[in-house]
Amino acid sequence: MSVAVAFDGQRVRIVGTGLIGASLGMALSRKGFRVSLDDPSPTAAALARDLGAGVLAADSDDVPDVVVVAAPPDVVADVVARELAHWPKAVVTDAASIKGAVLRALQDKGVDLSRYVGSHPMAGREKSGVVAAQGDLFEGRSWVVAPGPQASAGAVEVVSHIAAAVGSAVVVMTPDEHDAAVAAVSHVPQIAASLVASRLCDLPSGAVALSGQGIRDVTRIAASDPGMWTQILAGNAPAVRGVLESFAEELDAVLEALRHLESDPDGGSVGARAVLARTVADGNAGHARIPGKHGAAPTTYATVVVVIPDEPGALGRLLRDVGDAGVNMEDMHLEHGVGQPFGLAELSVLPAAKAPLMAALSSLGWRVHE
Amino acid sequence: MSVAVAFDGQRVRIVGTGLIGASLGMALSRKGFRVSLDDPSPTAAALARDLGAGVLAADSDDVPDVVVVAAPPDVVADVVARELAHWPKAVVTDAASIKGAVLRALQDKGVDLSRYVGSHPMAGREKSGVVAAQGDLFEGRSWVVAPGPQASAGAVEVVSHIAAAVGSAVVVMTPDEHDAAVAAVSHVPQIAASLVASRLCDLPSGAVALSGQGIRDVTRIAASDPGMWTQILAGNAPAVRGVLESFAEELDAVLEALRHLESDPDGGSVGARAVLARTVADGNAGHARIPGKHGAAPTTYATVVVVIPDEPGALGRLLRDVGDAGVNMEDMHLEHGVGQPFGLAELSVLPAAKAPLMAALSSLGWRVHE
Repeated sequence: MSVAVAFDGQRVRIVGTGLIGASLGMALSRKGFRVSLDDPSPTAAALARDLGAGVLAADSDDVPDVVVVAAPPDVVADVVARELAHWPKAVVTDAASIKGAVLRALQDKGVDLSRYVGSHPMAGREKSGVVAAQGDLFEGRSWVVAPGPQASAGAVEVVSHIAAAVGSAVVVMTPDEHDAAVAAVSHVPQIAASLVASRLCDLPSGAVALSGQGIRDVTRIAASDPGMWTQILAGNAPAVRGVLESFAEELDAVLEALRHLESDPDGGSVGARAVLARTVADGNAGHARIPGKHGAAPTTYATVVVVIPDEPGALGRLLRDVGDAGVNMEDMHLEHGVGQPFGLAELSVLPAAKAPLMAALSSLGWRVHE
Repeated sequence: MSVAVAFDGQRVRIVGTGLIGASLGMALSRKGFRVSLDDPSPTAAALARDLGAGVLAADSDDVPDVVVVAAPPDVVADVVARELAHWPKAVVTDAASIKGAVLRALQDKGVDLSRYVGSHPMAGREKSGVVAAQGDLFEGRSWVVAPGPQASAGAVEVVSHIAAAVGSAVVVMTPDEHDAAVAAVSHVPQIAASLVASRLCDLPSGAVALSGQGIRDVTRIAASDPGMWTQILAGNAPAVRGVLESFAEELDAVLEALRHLESDPDGGSVGARAVLARTVADGNAGHARIPGKHGAAPTTYATVVVVIPDEPGALGRLLRDVGDAGVNMEDMHLEHGVGQPFGLAELSVLPAAKAPLMAALSSLGWRVHE
């Protein structure tokens, strides 16, 4: 069909050269796509060009086959509509992390949406902006392709091809399915992390100093950008509200149980204890569903725990010694003490390599545990 | 004073040989303390002995100078009272992660508490039980010493000495200060992580598959033991309730803002957006207070990001190449794609080592980024 034929030209126009747009330009340019770059900030566009993300749109005569709009969520629909009108043959996608609100805003405009397919590359960094761009940002990540009811099959294929070209795993779902999923796996976790972290604002320093690895992990994403997240949460308000209401209901039950135990610590509060136990047990069950290396195959690797002493370069020395032992490490997790550079390294290796590695490291003076 | 003199004998009795008790026995034995071990489970006590944690109490004629009760929170007070009565010269401490409830239960018994000093080693592993014991479990961790009003200064000194002997940083605070601190930095984060994770129970698999590093971090501790946590939360009900109520209040404000935005997505909802922005911004501020290597000195190290390809042993090969480049790595953070063994390794090195490391790795074919 015509869209697929036009796509053979591989001319991609990227509008918005922040972290996602610039990284995508770098990735596509490496794969031989002809990428042109546009951004309201001439500086951001020029920087993206200098990083190898493509040529400036102003310097290009290309008629794009595909337009990728990588703009902030609150302007995405306007930019998509403009691009659809300006390039009447191009497939247009966007990379916003909310999909239903963008689609509905476009539908409200009465635009022909057969050439529009929303998408969401599930990639990002704690850093943002063009300087954080990486040509391999999308490798091994999921890229959700979320066509609305008007999208043509050819347009879905084109957007999927772009996602696959940069190494992402393409996941096709409806905009509402996407929004419900990210509400649960991304937006509500963000709110919870922020609310846990903000509990620390008024805590005495001595109390904050007791923070261990648990709260560090829970609150890592609490460092995220408020402006960006306001747009995301506001743009996905219905789905986030739904998940957050069920969170709040269970939280109220926990509070009720705690109040009961507070007023009657020893008495007949089996029911209150059961609420607490069920809350943690349900969390076990939900946590066990998360896929991935750590979750999916916990028994594939054996772990060896090594004490990292308080010396400069100790971790590097350990890793060199592991390499010299001829052992291929498959994963590593570091645990630090409070405010201290030393700690424990948990090395994952194939089960057969565990005993030889422990022996080799012990003989070199490392303190090693199973 | 007499307690300090008696302590020169360094005879420590440990009651309860789970993860904490057995690890403490191993650590103290290595330092030359004479440790005797007691546990309601003869198997657990014997295993701890075999791991080098000490001798069985049944085989020892020692009169202990110090008794450490490392029992589950709900039996700690009874065991402490029994030990105080049985060893009329010993200082007795416990290792429970709640302190106020234990102290109040002891006060209710009318026991002389001059020789009792509650404490809490802030150490633990995701695994539990004697098989997970490590002699270095306490190194570099905080160990809270939380004397009640009746505790003698000498007894505080003895318990602090034990904590310092196994490498912990001693932090002295009142039981109530301790409980307020752990409510915020440990107990409420646990509840939040469990509630985020349990949102996944009823989610379609395709939606759960979109889980990224954010929710993985937020929910890591959601894998914790429900029975243990029920005791902890019930035992610290007043402090947890207080922190959780302020959490719930802000959560309600977020829900209210989302409902407002849902009913009027484009209209005059500046106030609603401000609530969302403030929630994330307050989280930024709280998160910034957490001390530690990553938080305290973010500018000390330079980072180099390396793509780990989808090949067995790729990570091990990378670390060997880093070692061969003569560069001391100070820290490493791994990011995995969804369900995939490959990903990105973020290596932290001294700033001067960054350029040479990037050059060396690039020349070996690694894809390297700043």
